[in-house]
Amino acid sequence: MSNTFGHIFKITTFGESHGKALGCIVDGCPPHIPLSEELVQEFLNKRKPGQHDLTSPRQELDQCEILSGVQKGKTIGSPIAILIRNHDQKPKDYEEFTEIFGPSHADFTYNIKYKITPQTGGGRSSARETVGRVAAGAVAKSFVKSTFPHVNVCAWTQRIASVSNEVPMENITTEIVEKSPLRCPDETATKHIQNLLYQLKQDGNTAGGVIGCYVLGLPAGLGDPVFDKLEAQLAKAMLSIPASKSFEVGSGLQGTFLTGKEHNDIFYSDKDQKIKTKTNHSGGIQGGISNGMPLFFQVGFKPVSTIFSPQHTINSEKENVVFSPTKGRHDPCVLPRAVPIIEAMTWIVLADHILRQKCIES
Amino acid sequence: MSNTFGHIFKITTFGESHGKALGCIVDGCPPHIPLSEELVQEFLNKRKPGQHDLTSPRQELDQCEILSGVQKGKTIGSPIAILIRNHDQKPKDYEEFTEIFGPSHADFTYNIKYKITPQTGGGRSSARETVGRVAAGAVAKSFVKSTFPHVNVCAWTQRIASVSNEVPMENITTEIVEKSPLRCPDETATKHIQNLLYQLKQDGNTAGGVIGCYVLGLPAGLGDPVFDKLEAQLAKAMLSIPASKSFEVGSGLQGTFLTGKEHNDIFYSDKDQKIKTKTNHSGGIQGGISNGMPLFFQVGFKPVSTIFSPQHTINSEKENVVFSPTKGRHDPCVLPRAVPIIEAMTWIVLADHILRQKCIES
Amino acid sequence: MSNTFGHIFKITTFGESHGKALGCIVDGCPPHIPLSEELVQEFLNKRKPGQHDLTSPRQELDQCEILSGVQKGKTIGSPIAILIRNHDQKPKDYEEFTEIFGPSHADFTYNIKYKITPQTGGGRSSARETVGRVAAGAVAKSFVKSTFPHVNVCAWTQRIASVSNEVPMENITTEIVEKSPLRCPDETATKHIQNLLYQLKQDGNTAGGVIGCYVLGLPAGLGDPVFDKLEAQLAKAMLSIPASKSFEVGSGLQGTFLTGKEHNDIFYSDKDQKIKTKTNHSGGIQGGISNGMPLFFQVGFKPVSTIFSPQHTINSEKENVVFSPTKGRHDPCVLPRAVPIIEAMTWIVLADHILRQKCIES
Amino acid sequence: MSNTFGHIFKITTFGESHGKALGCIVDGCPPHIPLSEELVQEFLNKRKPGQHDLTSPRQELDQCEILSGVQKGKTIGSPIAILIRNHDQKPKDYEEFTEIFGPSHADFTYNIKYKITPQTGGGRSSARETVGRVAAGAVAKSFVKSTFPHVNVCAWTQRIASVSNEVPMENITTEIVEKSPLRCPDETATKHIQNLLYQLKQDGNTAGGVIGCYVLGLPAGLGDPVFDKLEAQLAKAMLSIPASKSFEVGSGLQGTFLTGKEHNDIFYSDKDQKIKTKTNHSGGIQGGISNGMPLFFQVGFKPVSTIFSPQHTINSEKENVVFSPTKGRHDPCVLPRAVPIIEAMTWIVLADHILRQKCIES
Repeated sequence: MSNTFGHIFKITTFGESHGKALGCIVDGCPPHIPLSEELVQEFLNKRKPGQHDLTSPRQELDQCEILSGVQKGKTIGSPIAILIRNHDQKPKDYEEFTEIFGPSHADFTYNIKYKITPQTGGGRSSARETVGRVAAGAVAKSFVKSTFPHVNVCAWTQRIASVSNEVPMENITTEIVEKSPLRCPDETATKHIQNLLYQLKQDGNTAGGVIGCYVLGLPAGLGDPVFDKLEAQLAKAMLSIPASKSFEVGSGLQGTFLTGKEHNDIFYSDKDQKIKTKTNHSGGIQGGISNGMPLFFQVGFKPVSTIFSPQHTINSEKENVVFSPTKGRHDPCVLPRAVPIIEAMTWIVLADHILRQKCIES
Repeated sequence: MSNTFGHIFKITTFGESHGKALGCIVDGCPPHIPLSEELVQEFLNKRKPGQHDLTSPRQELDQCEILSGVQKGKTIGSPIAILIRNHDQKPKDYEEFTEIFGPSHADFTYNIKYKITPQTGGGRSSARETVGRVAAGAVAKSFVKSTFPHVNVCAWTQRIASVSNEVPMENITTEIVEKSPLRCPDETATKHIQNLLYQLKQDGNTAGGVIGCYVLGLPAGLGDPVFDKLEAQLAKAMLSIPASKSFEVGSGLQGTFLTGKEHNDIFYSDKDQKIKTKTNHSGGIQGGISNGMPLFFQVGFKPVSTIFSPQHTINSEKENVVFSPTKGRHDPCVLPRAVPIIEAMTWIVLADHILRQKCIES
Repeated sequence: MSNTFGHIFKITTFGESHGKALGCIVDGCPPHIPLSEELVQEFLNKRKPGQHDLTSPRQELDQCEILSGVQKGKTIGSPIAILIRNHDQKPKDYEEFTEIFGPSHADFTYNIKYKITPQTGGGRSSARETVGRVAAGAVAKSFVKSTFPHVNVCAWTQRIASVSNEVPMENITTEIVEKSPLRCPDETATKHIQNLLYQLKQDGNTAGGVIGCYVLGLPAGLGDPVFDKLEAQLAKAMLSIPASKSFEVGSGLQGTFLTGKEHNDIFYSDKDQKIKTKTNHSGGIQGGISNGMPLFFQVGFKPVSTIFSPQHTINSEKENVVFSPTKGRHDPCVLPRAVPIIEAMTWIVLADHILRQKCIES
Repeated sequence: MSNTFGHIFKITTFGESHGKALGCIVDGCPPHIPLSEELVQEFLNKRKPGQHDLTSPRQELDQCEILSGVQKGKTIGSPIAILIRNHDQKPKDYEEFTEIFGPSHADFTYNIKYKITPQTGGGRSSARETVGRVAAGAVAKSFVKSTFPHVNVCAWTQRIASVSNEVPMENITTEIVEKSPLRCPDETATKHIQNLLYQLKQDGNTAGGVIGCYVLGLPAGLGDPVFDKLEAQLAKAMLSIPASKSFEVGSGLQGTFLTGKEHNDIFYSDKDQKIKTKTNHSGGIQGGISNGMPLFFQVGFKPVSTIFSPQHTINSEKENVVFSPTKGRHDPCVLPRAVPIIEAMTWIVLADHILRQKCIES
């Protein structure tokens, strides 16, 4: 019952990694929003595997088909179903998983929960599940842009292992991010990380890191007090992405070392009578509601758990065994491909809160 | 529309900091669960203000009244309404806020969102809102314990400013935590932090930090794939608590520096044929589902934004002014009182996922 | 988990017939809507028992207290909690029910569902549960009126046993309805029904009937296609009222005897270019969406099942016994008091759909 | 936002009458439930058009494809997406509707709500929308049968125009119903109705009527008090079906003429200590909860509004015009094809309440 996200702008996804197809239904999108397969495809292309030699070699075109909800390039108010068929599923490569529980994989917990033999290639726990989210994100973006044309969401690789991006946030743009095969805006860092990842790949090893994300142009007033605070919805959205381990908003963990005097964001009225804050430790959110400053958060990802190296583990008979995966296609580091997923989930959260806000206003 | 949390075990809270009363309705709690006002009171007492000289001097008994859903000490399957009346509300102390937007306070964003003059004492953005959550947490705990008697939730002050608890997690118990006025299991750290907080209080300043929380005795199989992963629900729950800034599960941010080989949790079958992992970087959750190991997460809190020191800010006329609050009652550090709130929200998340799991099992 | 109704304008009710208190939380009501205890009381007074000698003699003032969500006579956007304390609960009068399952009462099904001894006086199955709905209805009405001042909801007793109101719908007003102790706009029918009910009361017997309800002034465009059609939401709302047995919209059951040529509502544009239909068999709803014509529906109620006459039945030991209730306070006919409940539920459905519609419009 | 139905067993449908495809996602279905395309197809075949000369001549195979959630003939706990492609859509036949608002059609209200030109062939207001519900109903049935193998749902044509089925409910079986091209268990009535419908078809006219439905073998205890009473959920489900006008449970409208003494269902314990009632005016539901007796309800349908005969109406310019549809494919009477839709919605309601009940039981 957990495949739906959002309250008014509501997405429901389906599909297993090695099943026939994946996709989503977007319900609650207002009519008259521009939408086409091209627009969705653009989003999917950013996420799809096989983009370069440091991502999974799985070959999927991830070609989408809009089945409903759109006429003559615009939404019509009815649910938008988007279908992406699998082509390069190779369930056989994962057969070794059906007997052996891979360390830090979800096979074991799925087995306990559903009493099923771990599904070939991860079923719904595979990051391939996020295809449906990204398709839905394209719809959300188009809706948000129709309402607030100046809103922009931009995520990037902030750190992999211990190599960090040094480009300051205010200089980061989607164009710069997309120039890097690792979606890291810093050229020098990109090179260091590439070397590191080639090394790790050779060792059958993997890395983790942190993704940064900002939202510019968001009006003040979005987000609800109490349980559906903007940062709470974002935290849920981000921690629901496979392999994510942490979420920080604004000053985040670093900010918890500061005193109140240092941390408070001083309001001022600029020459155009626009209210701003001198610092932005709040990350654009106060009391769960956007304050008009750039929204900023970071998401940590663990190193990929599929490593090509022998590990002790157990099988479905509870016997201690050695597990040495030799096949299967995985990225040595998920971060570059997690960037569009984070952007998609952010657009979806924003779309829902924009619609919620309409219910408040008279 | 954001005052409800949970899908099957569902809580709805109400009440403003300086209104007549606060409370909650818990819907979806099964019948025959032990419940009494004493049991709820015990929870509320841990959260209530005025516990010692480093928490808010506001005097509230926070006495609860169960209005429905309980007969002869047991739940009966109908909604459980719990009422806590305010006694020591002093809206006048906060009147200066009605004109001036306090830095890093929610007055400004509430004003934009609801077009209302910031409510006296913070309305729903005040941490006093959490009274209803804590009362609901008592119900959740009683239900979880009825189903899995060995489950235990324990949160503690892990760090304030830069002083950290050094007691290892396996030695931390609720008894030890409750001995410290700061709910820090480490006696030496407690003393250092106390000194620090007295100092900060004298300077009209405040501190932030990190709270740790573990859940022991949880069966494997709880949590849903995709959007309602156990860590995603916890992340939302935690980031919905006022002043929280970060959430980390298991190895958290530190874990993102490791390689896959270092980070993977090796499964083994112990002598009783119980499946365990050698390390617990996963924090007890894999693929969004509990794996039977201790669940562990951390929550960061910013320094309290109400400081007793002049600050530049703006008023409702968008004029730049100086703000020098002299009255109002606030803790120099929210962490000690956030401990029971985190525990309450954790019980609530667990209760919901235990009921969800019942729907899977035949 | 079933004590919440509505998607955006959302009410949650609580309280048992013979418990301490009943009430509701209304979440999702926009700010700046006029609201006061007087306004809610007016609604509650229409429903309260003891209004005359043909309703239950239970003496309840049903005095409400607004606990949150309102300041200076206006809503502030936070949840509105309303409390009504029980005073005249007499659980002892119902003790005979705790052993014996009354025919057509919910004691038996509650016992099977919750494994509880039937609660004194009916618990949540008692029509006293509707107090919370009526309080919430007052909030809904105030919101709807703030948005569309000309909307009016009017329900009335259309038939009791086989005596029907003959006043045509276009002549029925709330004023006329309220003149009749039975809320029947037809004076002659009122007299006949009164005689009938006195007779039935003397015989320890009861009657059922039908309530009519119209909504005037509703704009076209409210209601959603597919599952949340306006009539589907109304049907659910009405069939959730204790003792209701049928729902008909527009031409209803009679309309199913007509041919398409007879039943179709011919559109025309009147001299003010307002689009109307010549007949209104659709009852103001087409395709689940309001068309601007008067909304009209009818709700059937069974005769009250508490009769003061010996009946065969079973007890909790599954033994066949004779049941002769001598105490307990019940109306010989629920219809007059169901009128305000139907109006309340209608306002609540409308409020929710008005907010939903805001999400569609740009 | 209205394309989802159910709380735990949750279906979301998509697709327009003349779009590319229709279908559904079923979320919340437990694992290990038998499911195959054959099983779904069997359900769809009962609903599909072109079954004989009194239903729409539209030629649709309504062939389904299960895209996810099933492996080796069993559900796996993940969402089940089912796709049905349109083949015989003829949007051109409906072009006359794009300018002219058909009387009693949803074109006008859709135009007001969504500001869109009425969609070719009705969009989501067409009964073709119900394909997704019927597919979901097949999943629901398989789940219910896995839990309670003896549950059976059977609907039938009870009346068309003024010709009624005279076969008593206890003699009606699915086999008998399916023998009649009109799904009327009464052979004589079937013949009369056939003649009537041929006559009406020749006149370009249409008829309405009533469908009966019973559920046998349902355990006591299903259904929730207050808003989600079993009959309230059924009423919503039924009134959400296109062209439905009324819902009656048990004795229904006729029962409202009886006195309490006549209407009360006397409990007794039969020789096997099974608790039954002598009459079943309650229709198997008391206090919103099933009592173990046969569940029984009736749904009224208006005559089809597409008639092939000139009618006065208006166009999108608000001009009064004459509307004479000559093309378009419609049934002279929807009832025979509504039978499987009602059964599907009933299975879906039951599936949801069976899962809800699991959350109550320990």
